[in-house]
Amino acid sequence: MATRIKSLDLANTSTAYYAPATIVQGNARLIHVAGQVGTAKDGSVPADYESQIHLALLHLRKIIIAAGAAVQDIAKLTLYIVDYNPSQRKHARPIQRFLKGHRPAITLVPVTQLAIPGLLFEVDAVIACPEVPASLPAPTSQVTSEVFDVAIIGAGLAGLTAAHEVLRAGLTCVILEARDRVGGKTWSQPLSGGQGGVAEMGAAWINDVNQTKMIALARRYNLELIEQNTTGNCVLQSFDGKASTFPYGKLPQFDQVTLEDVARIRDMCEADCQALDPFTPKSTALDAMTFEAYLRTRDASETSLATAAVWTRAMLGVEPSDMSALFFLNYCKSGGGLLQMRSDRKGGGQHLRIRQGTQSIAGALAKDLPAGIVRLNKPVERVVQDGPSYVEAVDTDGATYRVRKVITTVPSPALRHINFTPRLHPAKEAWSQSAGYGFYTKAIVVFKTPFWIAKGFCGLAQSFVGPASVVRDTSSPADDKHALTCFMSGIPGQAWAALPEAERNEQLLKQLGVLYSDQAAVDRNFVEVLKYDWVGDQWAGYGCPCASLPPGVLDTLGSASLREPLGNLHFAGTETAGDWKGYMEGAVRSGERAAKEVISGLSSTMLPHL
Amino acid sequence: MATRIKSLDLANTSTAYYAPATIVQGNARLIHVAGQVGTAKDGSVPADYESQIHLALLHLRKIIIAAGAAVQDIAKLTLYIVDYNPSQRKHARPIQRFLKGHRPAITLVPVTQLAIPGLLFEVDAVIACPEVPASLPAPTSQVTSEVFDVAIIGAGLAGLTAAHEVLRAGLTCVILEARDRVGGKTWSQPLSGGQGGVAEMGAAWINDVNQTKMIALARRYNLELIEQNTTGNCVLQSFDGKASTFPYGKLPQFDQVTLEDVARIRDMCEADCQALDPFTPKSTALDAMTFEAYLRTRDASETSLATAAVWTRAMLGVEPSDMSALFFLNYCKSGGGLLQMRSDRKGGGQHLRIRQGTQSIAGALAKDLPAGIVRLNKPVERVVQDGPSYVEAVDTDGATYRVRKVITTVPSPALRHINFTPRLHPAKEAWSQSAGYGFYTKAIVVFKTPFWIAKGFCGLAQSFVGPASVVRDTSSPADDKHALTCFMSGIPGQAWAALPEAERNEQLLKQLGVLYSDQAAVDRNFVEVLKYDWVGDQWAGYGCPCASLPPGVLDTLGSASLREPLGNLHFAGTETAGDWKGYMEGAVRSGERAAKEVISGLSSTMLPHL
Repeated sequence: MATRIKSLDLANTSTAYYAPATIVQGNARLIHVAGQVGTAKDGSVPADYESQIHLALLHLRKIIIAAGAAVQDIAKLTLYIVDYNPSQRKHARPIQRFLKGHRPAITLVPVTQLAIPGLLFEVDAVIACPEVPASLPAPTSQVTSEVFDVAIIGAGLAGLTAAHEVLRAGLTCVILEARDRVGGKTWSQPLSGGQGGVAEMGAAWINDVNQTKMIALARRYNLELIEQNTTGNCVLQSFDGKASTFPYGKLPQFDQVTLEDVARIRDMCEADCQALDPFTPKSTALDAMTFEAYLRTRDASETSLATAAVWTRAMLGVEPSDMSALFFLNYCKSGGGLLQMRSDRKGGGQHLRIRQGTQSIAGALAKDLPAGIVRLNKPVERVVQDGPSYVEAVDTDGATYRVRKVITTVPSPALRHINFTPRLHPAKEAWSQSAGYGFYTKAIVVFKTPFWIAKGFCGLAQSFVGPASVVRDTSSPADDKHALTCFMSGIPGQAWAALPEAERNEQLLKQLGVLYSDQAAVDRNFVEVLKYDWVGDQWAGYGCPCASLPPGVLDTLGSASLREPLGNLHFAGTETAGDWKGYMEGAVRSGERAAKEVISGLSSTMLPHL
Repeated sequence: MATRIKSLDLANTSTAYYAPATIVQGNARLIHVAGQVGTAKDGSVPADYESQIHLALLHLRKIIIAAGAAVQDIAKLTLYIVDYNPSQRKHARPIQRFLKGHRPAITLVPVTQLAIPGLLFEVDAVIACPEVPASLPAPTSQVTSEVFDVAIIGAGLAGLTAAHEVLRAGLTCVILEARDRVGGKTWSQPLSGGQGGVAEMGAAWINDVNQTKMIALARRYNLELIEQNTTGNCVLQSFDGKASTFPYGKLPQFDQVTLEDVARIRDMCEADCQALDPFTPKSTALDAMTFEAYLRTRDASETSLATAAVWTRAMLGVEPSDMSALFFLNYCKSGGGLLQMRSDRKGGGQHLRIRQGTQSIAGALAKDLPAGIVRLNKPVERVVQDGPSYVEAVDTDGATYRVRKVITTVPSPALRHINFTPRLHPAKEAWSQSAGYGFYTKAIVVFKTPFWIAKGFCGLAQSFVGPASVVRDTSSPADDKHALTCFMSGIPGQAWAALPEAERNEQLLKQLGVLYSDQAAVDRNFVEVLKYDWVGDQWAGYGCPCASLPPGVLDTLGSASLREPLGNLHFAGTETAGDWKGYMEGAVRSGERAAKEVISGLSSTMLPHL
């Protein structure tokens, strides 16, 4: 019987993120964790409090995994904090993200120092987990098993690409898709009113310079491309809520000192990311701190910090304080660098859209496969490697697929919802548990006319205050459909999403009125708002577009540890890509790479199907 | 099997109130308690350290009860103390009172601050209690059960009064009394030498103005009343041990500033207590602090504090720092106010004694009952409510009493020695466990002559230094018996009681010599000292005269929560009274009130016994 910690509450305590007490139920192994501190791989200690918290929590997570336990088994945490500031309580956010809703007893002890000078945070823990590890499911050997060379988990771009490659190599395969549709995080919804035009709830942009796989697919399936509009002015909404304009490609109208600092920070990030290997980034120093700490230690001004927050919110939905500096810089590098990734012009991350919708590529890839390969509504419940040559995948209906190789394309945070036997390598478990999404929702606001064009705007806007952090024109002029896609991300986006619907729309339209300095035009032309709550999407791992990592994971687990094969288990998905991580291009490339591993692995023992 | 914590000692540790280590024996559920702090019901934090400790311990107690555990299950406490002063160690006293002799491992951690500004104390805990709650006793259905309408637990004034009322209503009843006598905390011992005269080991005084029930009983049984002597001088023994006199009804000979402050504090307490409802006192602010903190926040001088300590020691045996301000002020209000309760004159709390002894009232009440109703030496071991209509009480001999209603009159601290099925409501458990006696012993010093009268004293004396805090003349002139009753209470009384007997008598007689400025007369007239150790009295709940409450209990549990009925279980006893709580009058009134509840509850389904 599984031991789990039961939180005990008194009259008024149930809304706290911790419980006044916990009860260890059933037989338990007790694990006492010594004070874990925020040291990097080389023993160095980052100067800031939040980076130290992230690293200390990573150490705790590794201990939990090594003990065969889970975060849900934590009975008690004791936090020791140097120079504790009760008006900030900076520990609360990373600890809440770590606990993911589990509520242990927590005691906070402000102290004047810790064991080693420079340490600002220490956490110790009591963990209680089942006496005997949960019994492993016996390999199923039903006569009803279907047999294939390869099972692919997920019918997004990575899985569909892998299936094409595997079939081309003369192997058999099946794709097990949990959703009732193909496309994964590409999801194109038709706009109301018919006659064409889509809202991209997920991935939206490609380019024809360095996204060679995606542009080839678009051309193979005769899809029409829409160039992102960059003619006219951009808008910045500053700390005071006021909007100012600036030409696309220039910096906003800051004072000279601020302008120079923003340019300096941008160029520094660009230079630092260009120095990284996109496949195997390495830097203990950069991975030992949050991106915010990286900026602050480089004396970034408040405006530069706010600018950087606009980047991280729009690109990943996270705050600079939630993420390793190395992770973010490497993410940029994988898209060719910060500047290229953020660019809406030729070769940039947001250059071209697909008139029929990005999901049409997955649809076409699926249609090109022989019948019976793509199985929808088949979430994989467990994967059992019961010998050197075979893997059994079992879906939630209990149907089994006996195969020689499995390629999983599920996002890393979703890996923990599949029961792997034997358990995944501890490094993969630690990665999967550490990886998390920020808050990220695109609100697609549809208008009757592109009134902003007439007023000399290109549509691109950014805001330090929100609720939208970034806005882009995602119209389809050929369909006479006009829309502004608003990135509702990070803390401002999360606050906005918590409002009642009427208030949400009101706030957003008001912001658009400010951004394009014409509230009347906004109100007059408004048609509808479309959005999709990726945070509630189980199969994406509860988020979008790409999971990010807190400090320490890349450096101490190894930046390749997510994509390394484990026996006959192979790992794809856009996160595992070197180039264009988090983008459709990265997904396709990861599918090709995993298929190559599988084909090469099976070639020695391959029975010719040719 | 019950898991209990075993304290482990090294050579020199067994005298500490904590143990260097504890061992969890047998199978245990482990409960980890987060740091509990001293917040009041409204979240406010009292300014002083001791009030915060009391409140934090109350939170801890509630968690222990909610977890189905007991104080004896605490394996470890960790105390976090801001601005710790090693020369004071103010935490030790409330924690010892909380632990009641249980000795967990305790670590004390001085810190510079806690999580919220203003917090001075935090406690966390590890508790280990039996894996499965102690199995509930099955209702006994022996053919030997006696059947009554009502079982009354306790043959003190409350229980005997209730029995009279219940019989008058035509119901049947039985009184189960644990002692070998009736009278409870009234206990009149004949003085040696025969020919009349009693020493009141327990309750002693009544009045004929506002104690209408008691005076009626005294008259019904033709008892003789002795008026308290208030003719002549009173004595104050001050900080320096020196005695000074003052007329009864005036304040002692303080300097003008001190005099005004003592009068101010006395009048303030009087006004504040008069503002309270005696039945349901309410004040989060007054209940969030100790009576001492209440006085200090009102800038009471050291003399006023010492005066107030004389009040609390003589009235309840407790220190001002051990008790909620609201509890004490409400206690005063229940006796008509501080001044009336402390008065020895007409209408006051100490106006009249009973020549034959107060216990003779209980004796007469018992004698007036039909035979077989009062059962002595019958401690009730458990009470089982096994359905909507019946209750079974089981005594320690295993005899069972099947009844429709139970009235318990036992003092709240003694409730925890009865096994209730189902368990008492958590609020009652928390009350019973929080309620505690101070140290209170009356040393009745018998003399051949009332030498103090001849010297112009009325006998009333008070002392800031002890060992006796208050002395009163309790002579019975008609019996030619002369005595001074010395209230050996609070810290000075406890220190005195710890001395060898010879030294005790010597110290007390020496103090009396100082008080009445004639050591020779004291020594020459001394006959004997009588005393009874209520602290060792199991059936009173180990104390006398009335249990008091630390901060937070009245306010957070509700001031009526002790006397509210629970199914067919009703609660009487002087503590549950509104008027004259802690006095015989309160006991009688509580018995009448509980009987009324029972009679009204049974009237709808009542089988006529008439």
